[in-house]
Amino acid sequence: MTRTAPMMELDKQLLQPGVKGLPITAPLRQGDIGARRWNVLNADTSFPVALLKSSALEHNLQWMRGFCERYGVQLAPHGKTTMSPQLFDAQLSNGAWGMTLATVSQTQIAHRYGVRRVLLANQLVSPADIGAVLTLMRDDPSFEFFALADSSAGVARLSQMAQQSGIERPLPLLVELGLAGKRAGCRGMEEALALAREIAAAPGLELAGIEGYEGLLVSPDRDKDHEQVRHFVAQLSDLLRQADAERLFKRSEILLTAGGSAYFDFVASGFAQVQDLSRPVLPVLRSGCYLTNDHGFYHDLIEQLNTREGYAPGQGLRPALEVWSMVLSRPEPTLAILGMGKRDASYDMELPRALVSHRPGAGLPSALPEGCRIEKMNDQHAYLRLPEGHAIAGELAVGDLIGCGISHPCTTFDKWPLLLAVDDDYTVQRAINTFF
Amino acid sequence: MTRTAPMMELDKQLLQPGVKGLPITAPLRQGDIGARRWNVLNADTSFPVALLKSSALEHNLQWMRGFCERYGVQLAPHGKTTMSPQLFDAQLSNGAWGMTLATVSQTQIAHRYGVRRVLLANQLVSPADIGAVLTLMRDDPSFEFFALADSSAGVARLSQMAQQSGIERPLPLLVELGLAGKRAGCRGMEEALALAREIAAAPGLELAGIEGYEGLLVSPDRDKDHEQVRHFVAQLSDLLRQADAERLFKRSEILLTAGGSAYFDFVASGFAQVQDLSRPVLPVLRSGCYLTNDHGFYHDLIEQLNTREGYAPGQGLRPALEVWSMVLSRPEPTLAILGMGKRDASYDMELPRALVSHRPGAGLPSALPEGCRIEKMNDQHAYLRLPEGHAIAGELAVGDLIGCGISHPCTTFDKWPLLLAVDDDYTVQRAINTFF
Repeated sequence: MTRTAPMMELDKQLLQPGVKGLPITAPLRQGDIGARRWNVLNADTSFPVALLKSSALEHNLQWMRGFCERYGVQLAPHGKTTMSPQLFDAQLSNGAWGMTLATVSQTQIAHRYGVRRVLLANQLVSPADIGAVLTLMRDDPSFEFFALADSSAGVARLSQMAQQSGIERPLPLLVELGLAGKRAGCRGMEEALALAREIAAAPGLELAGIEGYEGLLVSPDRDKDHEQVRHFVAQLSDLLRQADAERLFKRSEILLTAGGSAYFDFVASGFAQVQDLSRPVLPVLRSGCYLTNDHGFYHDLIEQLNTREGYAPGQGLRPALEVWSMVLSRPEPTLAILGMGKRDASYDMELPRALVSHRPGAGLPSALPEGCRIEKMNDQHAYLRLPEGHAIAGELAVGDLIGCGISHPCTTFDKWPLLLAVDDDYTVQRAINTFF
Repeated sequence: MTRTAPMMELDKQLLQPGVKGLPITAPLRQGDIGARRWNVLNADTSFPVALLKSSALEHNLQWMRGFCERYGVQLAPHGKTTMSPQLFDAQLSNGAWGMTLATVSQTQIAHRYGVRRVLLANQLVSPADIGAVLTLMRDDPSFEFFALADSSAGVARLSQMAQQSGIERPLPLLVELGLAGKRAGCRGMEEALALAREIAAAPGLELAGIEGYEGLLVSPDRDKDHEQVRHFVAQLSDLLRQADAERLFKRSEILLTAGGSAYFDFVASGFAQVQDLSRPVLPVLRSGCYLTNDHGFYHDLIEQLNTREGYAPGQGLRPALEVWSMVLSRPEPTLAILGMGKRDASYDMELPRALVSHRPGAGLPSALPEGCRIEKMNDQHAYLRLPEGHAIAGELAVGDLIGCGISHPCTTFDKWPLLLAVDDDYTVQRAINTFF
């Protein structure tokens, strides 16, 4: 099965009235969306609506491909960000080595839509999950899967279930090296190396590599972050060297993986220095947010990365995800109520950023002046505060549109079963499905 | 069409591997879930999993029915909380007058699953949304719909589109009375009364009643809240009297509606005093969170309501919604990492409350001691802090289960396309679908 076939099935499905963003009153074949030529600036869609700018997505796909080629690293982008078959397909078609995922449910969905190499950047613990993975590996010999391990208890479970499953090929594991006070992962080199030996010796398992996640080190003190990330990447490389010196790796290549969406340049440059081992090393980055970037938390981090990497302004990653909503009420001179809430846009890192206003059918969107900001969201509403005395406070009317950027794509994607890809004129091109 | 037919369609659908919480590796007919006799305490399901305790749901349905009967008020529970056809059905079967919803997308979904009376507790503004509502009203004469209005601009739009639609029956509107500094709604009685006159005179529209939302007054100062809520309810009643004195209402009954999930007792007792108008008044509460309650924000508010209403402990509303997850890692003596994150449980009002731990197959769950608390969540992980020196810190192991209560059901339901209803022994009875 190619990846294309299940994607075509998605376009054949009948979308029912009630899918957020779609202005339909009767079922519509998903693949017919583009032919409708809906334009957001004409208020042809329903609101709120989540939009992906195709040109920014395309740019970011190319950018990341070039970045990885430059450093000689592979990419297994974190699919939990979007959980979108069409976006997974675009990433794999643009050179991604595989997909990273966080759960076995996500893995099952990715497999259904044609993904054949999954790096589970998580511990694999529950019996149902272990069983589901072993079933996929048994039923589909082309399916490659890697999971993390950080405890003897976890390794013992996996070894037992892998043996009981009767599958011939071993289950490949990576030792997770953690960080004191942070999330999962072995605390310290000794513990990690001991676990590597256990995995190498465990029936039904094989040691495939070393994993860490430097993204947990992001803090307001960037200089300190950089130093700690470099140190952590060096530790991962050391651990790999030591395990290799003991000949614990048996596969043809040794996986070495880290790389969130903030400091993947430090990871790439650190990994590029790992050489002269008993067998080839496969360095794999796992950024999930590069694809859409954002207008908030990751935008700021990526601007700093662009500077470090020497990209000119506008040549780095571009924000691709916007949520548009309508002004429902102008109850007070400096307050507009929008039909967009916690159900529609991220609020975990910061609230959405109001970028532009637009009166449907009237020219082009206008950048909102300084001082216009979303100050609060309820479940289904946002409170847009307007600067006192500014013209916008008098002009913005019920029925006008507000285009917002968001901060943290992962927590916006999971609010939309379907997003709309648009061209630079905000004409809707096609649907992008998600499965959360 | 009865409400039962579309519900049966849901039970006929084939669930695919990858639906969160389901331990399946091949498609499963939804209606066959109960026959599997999965037990959460045996770790038969996948984790994380969202559970609804059937006995608590049933108790809360009966409780609210009794409450409304006692005060002589109707209930149009806010469906945005759960967006679940099966739960809408349970509410309507237990005496609810209709469903409240927040958006037209939600209205289309509710209509698809047999809801025939919708109170849109929101402004109706976008052309696509207005068109969709008018289409439903045209195509289904049995569908009753009410929306809010708070501006002349909004009323003019609605009047124009209602006239153009050629529908014979008018679109019923309620004037929304707002609160200074809060969300939508007319600011002050004069403005609201003027808008009521505009609606009464507008072709294609009819004035159906008066609406407000006292839930915006919830603050840490409960005594002040109570005074303000009573005052606001009195204002709503006054507005209704004044509009009635001008004979602006033409329908057989006048709708008077308010009532979130915190102070609906003040609303009910206030509404009960509205008498001697030109025609009967239909007082309608709109609480959404009564059905599941929670272990956080609403639990505390409801405990206070229970005291005001004279319910004995345990006789008030009960928390019905839990999220269970597995311990994936025990990286440090006082830290456990759970496979549950921002994708799985509410975090907007407070983080989930860790209630019990359980070793699959070993007896019954144990209440967690004081000091065990979720201190942080990432997208897919929670950080459970354990009290230093307590036995639990030594005992809790990889593979153990943690049962959590949540705070704010609306933002947990929207993270689960499918929840599992369980009996008091945590045996899975059936699936509960949601449509967000």
